[in-house]
Amino acid sequence: MTRICLIGAGPSGMSMLYNLAKMKEQGKHIPDVVCYEKQSDCGGLWNFDWRTGVDEHGEPIHGSMYHHLWSNNPKECLELPDYTFDRHFGKAIPSFLPREVILDYLSGRWKTVNATKFVRLNTIVKNVVYNSDKDNFTVWARDQVEDKDLPLEQFSHIVVATGHFSVPNTPYFKGVETFPGRVLHSHDFRDAREFKGKQLLVIGSSYSAEDILLQCVKFGAKSIVCSSRSGPMGFKWPAQIQERPLLEKIEGQTVFFKDGTSTEVDAIIYCTGYKHTFSFLPDNLRLQTENRFYPPNLYKGIVWIKTGNNKLMYIGMQNQFYSMTMFDVQSFWACRVILGEKTLPEKDTMEADITRWTQKLERVTSIAQAMDFQTKYVMDLCRDSGYQYNLDVKDILNDWDQKKRESIITYRDNVFKSKFTGTVSCKPPKPFMAAFEDSLDSFCKLNLH
Amino acid sequence: MTRICLIGAGPSGMSMLYNLAKMKEQGKHIPDVVCYEKQSDCGGLWNFDWRTGVDEHGEPIHGSMYHHLWSNNPKECLELPDYTFDRHFGKAIPSFLPREVILDYLSGRWKTVNATKFVRLNTIVKNVVYNSDKDNFTVWARDQVEDKDLPLEQFSHIVVATGHFSVPNTPYFKGVETFPGRVLHSHDFRDAREFKGKQLLVIGSSYSAEDILLQCVKFGAKSIVCSSRSGPMGFKWPAQIQERPLLEKIEGQTVFFKDGTSTEVDAIIYCTGYKHTFSFLPDNLRLQTENRFYPPNLYKGIVWIKTGNNKLMYIGMQNQFYSMTMFDVQSFWACRVILGEKTLPEKDTMEADITRWTQKLERVTSIAQAMDFQTKYVMDLCRDSGYQYNLDVKDILNDWDQKKRESIITYRDNVFKSKFTGTVSCKPPKPFMAAFEDSLDSFCKLNLH
Repeated sequence: MTRICLIGAGPSGMSMLYNLAKMKEQGKHIPDVVCYEKQSDCGGLWNFDWRTGVDEHGEPIHGSMYHHLWSNNPKECLELPDYTFDRHFGKAIPSFLPREVILDYLSGRWKTVNATKFVRLNTIVKNVVYNSDKDNFTVWARDQVEDKDLPLEQFSHIVVATGHFSVPNTPYFKGVETFPGRVLHSHDFRDAREFKGKQLLVIGSSYSAEDILLQCVKFGAKSIVCSSRSGPMGFKWPAQIQERPLLEKIEGQTVFFKDGTSTEVDAIIYCTGYKHTFSFLPDNLRLQTENRFYPPNLYKGIVWIKTGNNKLMYIGMQNQFYSMTMFDVQSFWACRVILGEKTLPEKDTMEADITRWTQKLERVTSIAQAMDFQTKYVMDLCRDSGYQYNLDVKDILNDWDQKKRESIITYRDNVFKSKFTGTVSCKPPKPFMAAFEDSLDSFCKLNLH
Repeated sequence: MTRICLIGAGPSGMSMLYNLAKMKEQGKHIPDVVCYEKQSDCGGLWNFDWRTGVDEHGEPIHGSMYHHLWSNNPKECLELPDYTFDRHFGKAIPSFLPREVILDYLSGRWKTVNATKFVRLNTIVKNVVYNSDKDNFTVWARDQVEDKDLPLEQFSHIVVATGHFSVPNTPYFKGVETFPGRVLHSHDFRDAREFKGKQLLVIGSSYSAEDILLQCVKFGAKSIVCSSRSGPMGFKWPAQIQERPLLEKIEGQTVFFKDGTSTEVDAIIYCTGYKHTFSFLPDNLRLQTENRFYPPNLYKGIVWIKTGNNKLMYIGMQNQFYSMTMFDVQSFWACRVILGEKTLPEKDTMEADITRWTQKLERVTSIAQAMDFQTKYVMDLCRDSGYQYNLDVKDILNDWDQKKRESIITYRDNVFKSKFTGTVSCKPPKPFMAAFEDSLDSFCKLNLH
C-alpha cells in the first residue's frame, strides 16, 4: 500500500502537498500522506522565530529568518505560474518583497487546495529506518507539544523536504574562544538594530554576507569589516563597509587578517553558510553533500538511488537560483512517480543520467553558467514530467544579477516583468535602504502605482 | 553478557567510569563499558564552548558555560573525599573556584585511573531501543567527526548521564518577537563584557539569574531590571540592579511589568532554567520530570523502574545542592548493582521507597529543609552501597547559604574548612567582584596565603 511520509512543511513540502491535492481535484486516486513539521506553523524558513539555538522543546531552531529581510530575488523569479502575484494581490506590487509578504503569497496558494490539512505541526521525525524485508520504512515521530512519541508507523515512501539553510557552518578561527563580544552565525541573526553604533566583523562573501552587511549599514552599524576566503565580492559598498582577506586570528577585540592588517570589533557575524544535515536519517538514507547545483546520488536531483527501492526522495536540496518554481516541478515530478504515472528507469540508466549532469556541472565556472545549468535542470524536469508551464526565467535572473552587480545598494528598487501575466512590477514607494517598516500589514496598506 | 553503554562524560559519567576503574584496581571483574560523549572533550557543562545554538555537526550545544564563571558553591561542598583539593593542588587555595580550576581538579581525579580511556568523544547517541525479547538495548550512535553511523550495538545496561542544564526553558512573553535587541537564554550567555554600558532585563530568580546579574554589574552593565514570578530574591543588590515582578509584555524596547511599571532595555536575558530533555530516548525509557530533588520513577534516584528490566539508570538527574559527591555515590551504587554486588528489591518495594522519598519531599518548604533532604538522600545511598566516606556537608551548605544571604556581592570571598583534610581555604587575593582574570594559568600563579 502506498503511504507517503513527507518531512517538512516549508515551500518544498507544501508544493508536494499542493500537487497531490491538485491531482485529487483532477479525480486521481491519491495515496495516504502525512507531513510532519517540527515548527508550529507551515512555511519553513519563511517563518520568523524570535528564539535562537533550540526551540521550546530542545530541538534546533529551523529558521534563519530576521526582521526586515526582503527577498534578494525579484518575485518574478519565483512566481508560480498557476498562482500568480496578480491573482494573490489583485494589483501590481514591487518586485522585491518583505518576508511576510512572500509567506502570505505562498500560503495563499496552499489555501486554494487546503494543502495544510495534511500537516501535523509540532511533530518532529526522530528516526527513519528502511526495512529491506518489507521494502518499506519505519518512522519514529514525536509530538513535541504533548511531549509524546507517536506510535511507530510504516510508510512505502519517504519524501525529505527539510531544507538546507538551517544548520550553520561555523568554522573555528584561532582565538575566537576568548573574544569578549558576541559571536554569532547568520542563522542566529534576528535584527540588525542590535548592532547599531557597533564595529562589526562579518565573515563570508555569499548571499547571507551581502544581505547582513546591507542590513547592518541600513540600521546604523558604525563600521563593518568583511572578511572572505574567496576575495572581494566586487560590489560598490557604502563607506562603512571594507573588504579584507580571510581572518587569521583573534586576540581580545582585535581581529587579524591574512594581509597583516587588523582592526577592533565589537561583534563577529559568521556568514559562512549552512550544512546539509539530516539528523533523523541513518547513513544508508542520508544525503551527504555540499551546497551544489546537482547533489550526488539523486536521480533527477530527487530520487535517492543508494538504498534499493527508489522510494526515498528529496525535494529542494540543490543550491538555488530557482526556488519556489523548482520545488514545484520537483514535487510534481515526484508525485507522478509515486502515483505510478511515471516509471523510473533501471539503476544504471539513472546513474548515467546523474553522471551526465554532474559532468555538465563540472564545466560551470560562472554565475551566468550556473543560472543556465539550473534553468536546463528545471526545464528537463518540466519536459520529463509533463509540467504544463514554461518555468524558464533565465533572462530575469541574468538581468537581476546584472543590476545587483551595478549597485548592491539599489538593486532592490528595480522593476521586472512577469513571465506569466506580463505585469510590470511597480517601483517601491521607498527605496530598500530607506524602508524601515516591512510588515505585511503595512505592505498591504501601501499606495502603489 | 554485561555490557554498559554510558551516555555522557561530564562529572556524572566520569564518576561512573572512575568507580568502575577503581573496582578493577581492586581486582574485580569489570564488564565492557563504552561511554559516548558528543562533545570533543570530557567535562560536560564545565567545558567552555564559544559556539551557541548548535555545534559544528548541527547538534544542540551542550554547555551553558561562560567566561568568568566561578563556582557559586564553596569547593568544600563538592570535594571528593578520595581525591581532595589538597592532593590535587598541593596547597590551600580559595573556596570559590573559576571554571577552569574546577575542571582541572575533576580531570586530575579521572587521570589517577585513566578513566577517559573508555570515552568515545565526538560521538552522539541518536536512539536507544529496549528489546523486550532479549531484555537488552540497541543503541544507534554516530561519529560526528567522521559523519558516519557506528554499527548498531547491543548493551545489557544503559546509564544516562547527560545532565539537565543544557536545554533552555524559554517561555514566551507577549511582544518578544518584535523586540529590536538581543534576546538570549543564559544557556547562550558567554561573556558579560558584551553587555557593558547596556540596559538589561534579566528574567528569573534562581542561580543563573543571581550569577548573571552579578557578572553584568561586574563587567559594566549600565542598569539591570530583574523580573521574576516568585517575588524579590531578597539580596542587597548593587545600585545598578532593581527587582520587579513578572514581565507582562514587550513593546519595542519597552518592557512592562505586572505592577504597571515599565522601562527601556537593550537586551533581554532569560534566566528561566532548563528542561530535562533526552531527545535520544523513546517514551518508555525517557525520564520526564521537572528539576526536583527526587525525580519520579527512579529507585534511589537512579534506577528506571518503568521498563521491566531495571537495567536503565540515570545519574545526576536531581536538583542539586550536592553535586560531585552525589554523582560519585550514585555511580558507586550503580556500579555495585551492575556488578551484581547489590540486588535490587522487588518492584513494589522499589515503588514504595520512591513514594516514601516523594512524600518526604512534599513536606520540604525551605532551602534549609531541601539541603537536609538531599543530605539524607546522599547519606542513604552511602549506607546502602557501603560507600566508605561520610559525604555530609550540610553544615557547610547552611553556612554558605547564610553568607550568600548576608551579602550576595561578597559571599565568594569567604573561607571554609574541608571535611576531609581539615584544611581551611585561603582568602582569594582579590575579592570576586574585583577579579577580572580567571584562567587556570593565572590561578596557578597566584600567590596564595
